[in-house]
Amino acid sequence: MRKPTQEEIIKFCHANTVIDFLEVEVVPTPDGEARLELCADSRHANLYSMAHGGVLTTMADTAMGAKCLALSKKVVTISLTIEFMHSVMINTPRIFTDAKVLHDGRKTMVCECNIVDAKGKLYAKASATFFVTGLLD
Amino acid sequence: MRKPTQEEIIKFCHANTVIDFLEVEVVPTPDGEARLELCADSRHANLYSMAHGGVLTTMADTAMGAKCLALSKKVVTISLTIEFMHSVMINTPRIFTDAKVLHDGRKTMVCECNIVDAKGKLYAKASATFFVTGLLD
Amino acid sequence: MRKPTQEEIIKFCHANTVIDFLEVEVVPTPDGEARLELCADSRHANLYSMAHGGVLTTMADTAMGAKCLALSKKVVTISLTIEFMHSVMINTPRIFTDAKVLHDGRKTMVCECNIVDAKGKLYAKASATFFVTGLLD
Amino acid sequence: MRKPTQEEIIKFCHANTVIDFLEVEVVPTPDGEARLELCADSRHANLYSMAHGGVLTTMADTAMGAKCLALSKKVVTISLTIEFMHSVMINTPRIFTDAKVLHDGRKTMVCECNIVDAKGKLYAKASATFFVTGLLD
Repeated sequence: MRKPTQEEIIKFCHANTVIDFLEVEVVPTPDGEARLELCADSRHANLYSMAHGGVLTTMADTAMGAKCLALSKKVVTISLTIEFMHSVMINTPRIFTDAKVLHDGRKTMVCECNIVDAKGKLYAKASATFFVTGLLD
Repeated sequence: MRKPTQEEIIKFCHANTVIDFLEVEVVPTPDGEARLELCADSRHANLYSMAHGGVLTTMADTAMGAKCLALSKKVVTISLTIEFMHSVMINTPRIFTDAKVLHDGRKTMVCECNIVDAKGKLYAKASATFFVTGLLD
Repeated sequence: MRKPTQEEIIKFCHANTVIDFLEVEVVPTPDGEARLELCADSRHANLYSMAHGGVLTTMADTAMGAKCLALSKKVVTISLTIEFMHSVMINTPRIFTDAKVLHDGRKTMVCECNIVDAKGKLYAKASATFFVTGLLD
Repeated sequence: MRKPTQEEIIKFCHANTVIDFLEVEVVPTPDGEARLELCADSRHANLYSMAHGGVLTTMADTAMGAKCLALSKKVVTISLTIEFMHSVMINTPRIFTDAKVLHDGRKTMVCECNIVDAKGKLYAKASATFFVTGLLD
């Protein structure tokens, strides 16, 4: 069971085409993996000029999938919960994902993902269960 | 406390600008309200060529907010859970939201939303709690 | 793949020993299955003299497992979400579970469960994903 | 807005009468608060001789409420999600709650709670949103 390279993890994120469609950025991290970043603008909004919860969910889900991949697992999301704590206003400093694997099972995995800004402010927190469909080739 | 017109509900959906950005359609329904529809294409995908869970979540969250508005409530999402049952493959027939209000409280509301196709097949189910921020003017 | 008898479904519920410990009742239903019922008293409470959310969750989780069993599946709960809409005050008329299977997959199942009273008032709604560990012998 | 004493936090936990009914222990912690502990036995089980998920949920919900109280807030649970990672077999070493507040809002709060053993093994993780009903007198 080999570990993916950072390039493969970045490629994985972009292979989730909605990430590019939404102009979410995929940014390499010092640990050899990647995170998703967004400076939300008027196209990502709900009617209150906040980044739409669905955009944050898209980022979190993809970031958690990338963390599973980093452990050589291919997964699909079974269920996901997200709690919204602070509004991410559009045109404010960028937010990014901070995801980790809580349970690395053979058949299922559990991850969580914080949506934070550079100061560490927590805007939303997602957790999800994933079904393991295979191992990295 | 007045009821919104169908036009206002449709306008509300589009005011969630990410709906247009993702090219999700807002379709009037015979009950005087609206639902969200999507024929997912290669831009909405995860790496398995399925509509990304975040896209389905965006649709569900917005559709539930529209159901709250139909009861004259302005809301923000507190927490949302979505369970994925079947893959929505891209370029397959369209899916749409089927949302309803389960609890219409003064301070909080609870809604659920099925993501289904025209044959009634259930692809995903979301439920969410909302905080009531105000009434329709 | 044989169907369980009503007696087997009832036995399953009691085999979840916490059901008896909490004095939750297992009541046969006309469809050949069973539901869980409770007239909450002062032992089931939180500090507001409401039935504790954990008790409602215990009922919902068990009732959903029983619905899986009725489809000949043995399952364990992967994740569960419950939304609380109205307080179940202690010493009020009884509440009961109304569970159903939303997705009967080979490896995972999705169920939901309403907690209602005899008038159909909805107090709480749970949904959960289950991992299929085997089939009924 | 005064802080509760450790005695008040312990009393709060017991005031959730189901805690005593289930023979869950309330144990003071060095930080001046309290946690819930259980050595699950045959009365707390599901049919696989594991501690029932509803019991773990009861512990987590109460422990999160106690964390809100420690911040001088009285709350009711709006929604709760729990993910189960490892079975808590009965008659094994004790498990306990490790809860914290993620968001201390004026009207809503978000908490999470790990269910762990003394070695730090993570069995389940809950997160929940709470509605603030008042401040500690």
